[in-house]
Amino acid sequence: MFQDLNINTICALATPQGSGAIAVVRISGKDAIPIVSSIFKSKKGIKLEEAKGYSLLYGDIIKDGQLLDEVLVSLYRSPASYTGEDCVEISCHGSSYITSQIVMLLLENGAKLAEPGEFTKRAFMNGKMDLAQAESVADLIASETSSAHRVAMQQMKGGFSNELKSMRESLVDIVALMELELDFSEEDVEFADRSRLRSLLSDVIAHNEKLISSFSLGNAIKNGVPVAIVGATNTGKSTLLNAILGEERAIVSSIHGTTRDSIEDTINLNGILFRFIDTAGIRSTGETIEMIGIERTYSKIKQASVVIMMLDATRPEYFDDSIINLSKRIDNSTQNVVVLLNKIDAIDSDESLAVEENGVALKRHKYSKDELLKMVDDVVKEAGLSPIATIPISAKSNLGLETLRDVLVDSQKELAYSANRTLVTNLRHWEALKDANNALYRVEDGLNTSIPTDLVAQDIREALYHLGSIVGEVSTDEILGNIFGRFCIGK
Amino acid sequence: MFQDLNINTICALATPQGSGAIAVVRISGKDAIPIVSSIFKSKKGIKLEEAKGYSLLYGDIIKDGQLLDEVLVSLYRSPASYTGEDCVEISCHGSSYITSQIVMLLLENGAKLAEPGEFTKRAFMNGKMDLAQAESVADLIASETSSAHRVAMQQMKGGFSNELKSMRESLVDIVALMELELDFSEEDVEFADRSRLRSLLSDVIAHNEKLISSFSLGNAIKNGVPVAIVGATNTGKSTLLNAILGEERAIVSSIHGTTRDSIEDTINLNGILFRFIDTAGIRSTGETIEMIGIERTYSKIKQASVVIMMLDATRPEYFDDSIINLSKRIDNSTQNVVVLLNKIDAIDSDESLAVEENGVALKRHKYSKDELLKMVDDVVKEAGLSPIATIPISAKSNLGLETLRDVLVDSQKELAYSANRTLVTNLRHWEALKDANNALYRVEDGLNTSIPTDLVAQDIREALYHLGSIVGEVSTDEILGNIFGRFCIGK
Repeated sequence: MFQDLNINTICALATPQGSGAIAVVRISGKDAIPIVSSIFKSKKGIKLEEAKGYSLLYGDIIKDGQLLDEVLVSLYRSPASYTGEDCVEISCHGSSYITSQIVMLLLENGAKLAEPGEFTKRAFMNGKMDLAQAESVADLIASETSSAHRVAMQQMKGGFSNELKSMRESLVDIVALMELELDFSEEDVEFADRSRLRSLLSDVIAHNEKLISSFSLGNAIKNGVPVAIVGATNTGKSTLLNAILGEERAIVSSIHGTTRDSIEDTINLNGILFRFIDTAGIRSTGETIEMIGIERTYSKIKQASVVIMMLDATRPEYFDDSIINLSKRIDNSTQNVVVLLNKIDAIDSDESLAVEENGVALKRHKYSKDELLKMVDDVVKEAGLSPIATIPISAKSNLGLETLRDVLVDSQKELAYSANRTLVTNLRHWEALKDANNALYRVEDGLNTSIPTDLVAQDIREALYHLGSIVGEVSTDEILGNIFGRFCIGK
Repeated sequence: MFQDLNINTICALATPQGSGAIAVVRISGKDAIPIVSSIFKSKKGIKLEEAKGYSLLYGDIIKDGQLLDEVLVSLYRSPASYTGEDCVEISCHGSSYITSQIVMLLLENGAKLAEPGEFTKRAFMNGKMDLAQAESVADLIASETSSAHRVAMQQMKGGFSNELKSMRESLVDIVALMELELDFSEEDVEFADRSRLRSLLSDVIAHNEKLISSFSLGNAIKNGVPVAIVGATNTGKSTLLNAILGEERAIVSSIHGTTRDSIEDTINLNGILFRFIDTAGIRSTGETIEMIGIERTYSKIKQASVVIMMLDATRPEYFDDSIINLSKRIDNSTQNVVVLLNKIDAIDSDESLAVEENGVALKRHKYSKDELLKMVDDVVKEAGLSPIATIPISAKSNLGLETLRDVLVDSQKELAYSANRTLVTNLRHWEALKDANNALYRVEDGLNTSIPTDLVAQDIREALYHLGSIVGEVSTDEILGNIFGRFCIGK
């Protein structure tokens, strides 16, 4: 099956769709050079077939005897290329018409359109990278923050693969020791180094469990720290979200030169991605808090790492109900709680409770800012919550947002520090590690009981199988199809 | 002013926004090489400063001591580069995070973010191309059809500029001859070769007018042939449009690998772009045709090169009103009319007017297909129209659409044949040509009357000025700003 793939020469647009200054069409396979050569004329008359690897040639793409475009061609010879095969990259004007014409010309001359991820799949097939590294390429491209980028880069450079390798080597050592025991089994000898076996094994299990538990961090880095903003309607939840996202959008677009299509509800604060969960649906009606779609909202609160509880400073009469009701749904031992006292700009300054308007003294608010904060504090304590911060803000006037941002970033310090170590970010890897762990527990049990050594060895082999599946030492067409099918075309 | 521009080293993302396998960041200017060198480490330890032009180096982009990405760097040394300056292209993984980090790194190291079109502007400033060629780069990138592409490529290769050059040389010859006459004017000699002057001039005028008149073709090629689909509501106008566009979309997306974001209402048939003008708003109410927003619809019909008149085969009672009403708004001497008899699949076949349903004979339609076509023909003639085709179709069942496509393509044969000659596609060029022409007419008048030769020569200089403005021999910051401001960043 692996050989089959390499018979075809594949091609695809490698840069994003759309208009731009430059687009790149990529070709890989044994006929890459002759196929491109048949449509390309170098300005200096250099034949592509005769050019060295890592050559850059300027010339014309000719279609039906006419100039289609003036392009730059980069030539890479096997094995010194991304795929390990002969590769050519055609850098042309960034017009959809030109790129599709070039791709069609290549198809007419014998290339096949690459499937999603097929270039990277070939790199894997040709031993340029293992499967975990190949998967990290897609993560690298999708990464939006410095942490996600560092984790993906770490994996691409083989950090994760090396840890797996050392675990697998330990397991192979254990099997070897066991097989030694097995060879002598007829003599009914139990080797003195069973304790060494156990110690080796428990090291592997500890290592494996460290990786397994890194998944929650890795997942937060890759997909964002889930943050729920909860509170009654009209407390200003969406105003807050827009205020934070709006600023982020402005920053992003000033760097990128255009507006990004879809940031959705994620923001990047100091290199950490926060993903906001929509929990709209708590409505305050008169005396009580009525929940709309209560269960849905509660289950969303459950997913959050950070719960932002919004209170309306102009309506202190709802503090009690809001806080106590919500506190029942929050697990303060695992979830960070931030209390926001919104609309604080509508509250009179501390010293003046009465405000003059057109010469008439009006008692606008019963409580000062400090009194309100004290009230919130009391209710929060009563509810058994220990928020990481209580911040008076005005989402509308951008007051206190800077503090909120600092608090959010600070709450995820661990994330920022962890990005340099190996983190599991991939569900497939996590599941394989867990499967391996189950097998390793059976091995541990086996060593402690009288289960025959050959059965125990079988479990180790199962653990090795699962660990090997991560780097692709064992893989099926289906697994590969699943992995590379999620790549973009041209990668 | 020209020098100022070249002080800065500029950088920008050159490939389209979005995720892809590859993205390219482009840097140009005298510090391009040292700036990139300060963030790039070649795998082979080759220093960028010491590498030759047209080198391709594989290595790491380093940020804060950490690996940001593994990239390929292409190096071009002045003047053998796009801009004529030292240029570097960094080909990195196609992640927005990585590209924005690389751009920021370059900015931190002294580069400036390029303005839209600034790379091409520098190519113009450094004499790598004239202004008309520079403008064609944007057209080339935007071109969606083979005709638009050929016209832009022709212009980029200098086809248009060469024609202008020959016209300008003739005018310079004329001025020289006139000045000769002027030198001898005190002797009151009128040179014998005034007739030669006139003949030279009329050649230039003829050439100029040919270019001016090519604008309507050039514009149709660049922006699409305007087609209006008109008819009463429920005749199936939008079904027709969707049927044609839908197929086009499928073709486009199969080549591109993804769905294009916005084709709007243009389709590419045999390399010719057709642009459909929305004329919704003619409603048939009982006996008469009521127009909604009549004037708006009529003015849109006026812009069309092709008017598709939709009739509903199941409602022959409206044929008269529809055709006669619309015919008043159509100029059949300049506009191509196509009559479509839609919903033809609902009409019984010619031989059987009565249809049997469950054994019961039903008289479903009073007229057969042939009879309906005859009726349409008669009304069309009565209305004084000579359609290029009358086609029975079913937009819903895709009947007759192939014929419609052939008729549309056939009606624009001239366009397809014209794409290889020089066509004016740019409003700025067209206006300059017209200004030049006015001046040339004054010259012609001057030669035929007793206007002093030096005044006539002044008009020739004005014509030269206008023609020179097209290729940028005379230009202002404002003109350049207008032209390059419309480019994308990175070009």
